Amino acid sequence: MLLDMNLKMLMRLLIKMRSLLFHCKNYEVKIDRIANRPEKIIPEEVKERVQECKDCIVVLITIEIDDKIKKMTSLLKDEISKMSLEVGHKNIVILPFAHLSNNLAQSKQGIEAITLIEEKLKGEFNVIRAHFGSHKSLLLDIYGHPGNARYREFY
Amino acid sequence: MLLDMNLKMLMRLLIKMRSLLFHCKNYEVKIDRIANRPEKIIPEEVKERVQECKDCIVVLITIEIDDKIKKMTSLLKDEISKMSLEVGHKNIVILPFAHLSNNLAQSKQGIEAITLIEEKLKGEFNVIRAHFGSHKSLLLDIYGHPGNARYREFY
Repeated sequence: MLLDMNLKMLMRLLIKMRSLLFHCKNYEVKIDRIANRPEKIIPEEVKERVQECKDCIVVLITIEIDDKIKKMTSLLKDEISKMSLEVGHKNIVILPFAHLSNNLAQSKQGIEAITLIEEKLKGEFNVIRAHFGSHKSLLLDIYGHPGNARYREFY
Repeated sequence: MLLDMNLKMLMRLLIKMRSLLFHCKNYEVKIDRIANRPEKIIPEEVKERVQECKDCIVVLITIEIDDKIKKMTSLLKDEISKMSLEVGHKNIVILPFAHLSNNLAQSKQGIEAITLIEEKLKGEFNVIRAHFGSHKSLLLDIYGHPGNARYREFY
């Protein structure tokens, strides 16, 4: 009991990346404006103001402070591959999302992690990657089957 | 530095409720089927299979193990009130959501907390409360302005 509690405590302290995966009928994103917070944010260059996708897995990703990027992006890729097989769709949306944690990584590290995930997925999947560093309107039209939404923590 | 780290560690260990608040143009939910997991889940009676709302704050709530329900529901009500004032809409959707944590409370405790939040809000807001214990299709059509999405942890 005590050992179990200690393990749980330790795991929580080591968590470095959080992700929420949704199986969506429809996805749309539109950049509303470039973000100027948190204070030291460095947004990416904007390539597409609007993106859309049907029948896809939308992956909301929050990168925390001091990530072990390579290991965690591999683990996340495994989760995405598993879900893709189960739902039968190969369209993946990578969405940088600052709202699954209060311990965000620096912009540079966040962009690096998101880019690495994108690169890892590109060979096998149709990947859309949303902009890092902007306020966006967002449409998530999520299927209702079991396993439609999955939360994962990586450490 | 060390004190700061210890405080952060302590706070993480004490976190008991997590919430994600979205300012939505449109919200729709439709029950797909009753959930039979996690293992000991006890779903509520179904009153409405479909719910819709426009111009609302959708509050995804995850209740964790060993919650201090009264204190935390008060803190969450304060967050909802603040956001409602800022966005100028009084329609609130309470959505029990099992996907912001891996340490879920028992069903009884989860339903108790959700019901308490609903009761606290009813006097001041137009409240829709989604079903606890089902797989649902979900439409979140989220505005793009700063502050459209907020993540909160309560402890």
